Amino acid sequence: MDDAAFRRRYAALRALLNRRSRSLGWRGEPKDLRDGCSYVLGAGGKRVRSVLLVLSCEAVGGSAAEALDAGFAVEALHNFTLVHDDIMDHASSRRGRPTVHMRWDTNTALLVGDVLLGLAYRSLLGTRPGSPGPLARLMTGALLDVCEGQALDMEYERRNDVTIADYFRMIEKKTGRLIAAATEMGAVIGGGTPAQVRALKGFGQHLGLAFQLQDDLLDVVASEHELGKPVGGDIVEGKKTFLLLTAAARARGKDRSLLGHVLRGTAPGMKRTVLVNHVTEIYRRHGVLEDAQHRILRETRSAVRMLGTIPPSEASAMLAWFAGALVHRAS
Amino acid sequence: MDDAAFRRRYAALRALLNRRSRSLGWRGEPKDLRDGCSYVLGAGGKRVRSVLLVLSCEAVGGSAAEALDAGFAVEALHNFTLVHDDIMDHASSRRGRPTVHMRWDTNTALLVGDVLLGLAYRSLLGTRPGSPGPLARLMTGALLDVCEGQALDMEYERRNDVTIADYFRMIEKKTGRLIAAATEMGAVIGGGTPAQVRALKGFGQHLGLAFQLQDDLLDVVASEHELGKPVGGDIVEGKKTFLLLTAAARARGKDRSLLGHVLRGTAPGMKRTVLVNHVTEIYRRHGVLEDAQHRILRETRSAVRMLGTIPPSEASAMLAWFAGALVHRAS
Repeated sequence: MDDAAFRRRYAALRALLNRRSRSLGWRGEPKDLRDGCSYVLGAGGKRVRSVLLVLSCEAVGGSAAEALDAGFAVEALHNFTLVHDDIMDHASSRRGRPTVHMRWDTNTALLVGDVLLGLAYRSLLGTRPGSPGPLARLMTGALLDVCEGQALDMEYERRNDVTIADYFRMIEKKTGRLIAAATEMGAVIGGGTPAQVRALKGFGQHLGLAFQLQDDLLDVVASEHELGKPVGGDIVEGKKTFLLLTAAARARGKDRSLLGHVLRGTAPGMKRTVLVNHVTEIYRRHGVLEDAQHRILRETRSAVRMLGTIPPSEASAMLAWFAGALVHRAS
Repeated sequence: MDDAAFRRRYAALRALLNRRSRSLGWRGEPKDLRDGCSYVLGAGGKRVRSVLLVLSCEAVGGSAAEALDAGFAVEALHNFTLVHDDIMDHASSRRGRPTVHMRWDTNTALLVGDVLLGLAYRSLLGTRPGSPGPLARLMTGALLDVCEGQALDMEYERRNDVTIADYFRMIEKKTGRLIAAATEMGAVIGGGTPAQVRALKGFGQHLGLAFQLQDDLLDVVASEHELGKPVGGDIVEGKKTFLLLTAAARARGKDRSLLGHVLRGTAPGMKRTVLVNHVTEIYRRHGVLEDAQHRILRETRSAVRMLGTIPPSEASAMLAWFAGALVHRAS
């Protein structure tokens, strides 16, 4: 398949998932809570986790149809984390629209998150009525690790001794874990052998790291239009990203002093754009952006290598293409 | 068995559940999150839902041992709702101690709630590795209804046209649903017949209503020491309880005017104790407290009647005793 064919297949899969998502939504009351849930689930987005789950199912010989409800489940779980994280981070926009707690209020957002998690389980447990136990256990492990990752992320905001190893431990839980759970769940649903399940889980783990590193990178190299929010948000918030931690370890003199202020959240009274440009310039000068790019490519290659143990198929080719597309994405 | 024997059995069961709870707790990081989870799970309390689940299992011929993990699950789920509700209600104390968001902060409390829900599923899915699906589906249905009940409760705070029928619809979801899920899950785990499962679910439904009405009543008739928080909190917050809605429908003249202010959250600048005493006096004068007491007894009798289809046993006697004890409780 060529790139255009891959794109068509991806668009078709996303449309299929969005259609299923609408029918698995919530019909409860009151209206605010129902609207909040639809607002989140209907926001579009790349559907990374559900697409990966369905393709992983197909890659081991399963059908897309049997993986759709579990695909919805990981997507709903992911959105649950976004809605609650946005409350915790006081984020005002996501995907170019106001966050739930800004559009409604914090209490509604808290409950929207809780309901999304309930919907995730409802849809997963409806899958394969025979034995949803192993899938639900997998998703629960991911849920607990994602919470742990978010708690570590918040703790790092208050700490001044965060290392790059700490950073990787955190993103592995906060971002990598659910992506790996998605590919693993897909392989289980498709009836993969234990070796195939392990391979697809490994694919998700490496891809998850690459994906988060790319996210950190896009915060400074993408445009506001592409991001759906102002550029350099991580810098302004002093988020301990791979970029900031790596640069802080390398810089000396005035650069080091400025990064130290950014890390401690005591940056001197510069205008936002001046600060962001200044720090981005430091990143460039110390080769941090290239280094991130290099690591992203390395993790992506490791991910694609894991696919070697899966029989070649359209789905496994799609997985490799999708990994590449995520790494070259602009938003 | 006499009352003392029932009490001993209840204490033993609670100790068993508390012990199991400690081993099913969370070992993740960071420390704040781990401490927050232990703080909530170790707070004691009556363990109403887990005790009911275990007794329901025994009442249809199952053993307590096989129900302990599901018992922990409903208890953890209940505590998840309490921690999130306390954030939404800005509650400062619970069970005589600061709430999680007061003791730590809102972000930690939000995540403590999320982790407790994860623990609920982890422990439930670990139960009976064969087929936890039906149990997990039951718990998920309860989770979604409890969220809906809480959302309705918050919506009622903003509405001035809440009826007593609305109130019952809300508490059935917010309080009744999880209690009924607990008794139903216990009956399923114990291998009850469909009729027995229905009977124990019905027992939980009636008991749940009685329990919530008793909760409303205790807010004005218990002491601050018994409640672990100041008396009359519902009145001060203008909560649309059975008492307030019933009194508002009956009162005329000055009484009606004051209750209208309480309902709309515009009570005149009275001292808290004066307002609480005044409204309680109105409740008394209009027979509202007696009426609540009467309904509580009626629901409790309906609950106990449901046990008629279960073979007589120590466990079913315990269930009847426990229902009575809950209704006569002072806190």
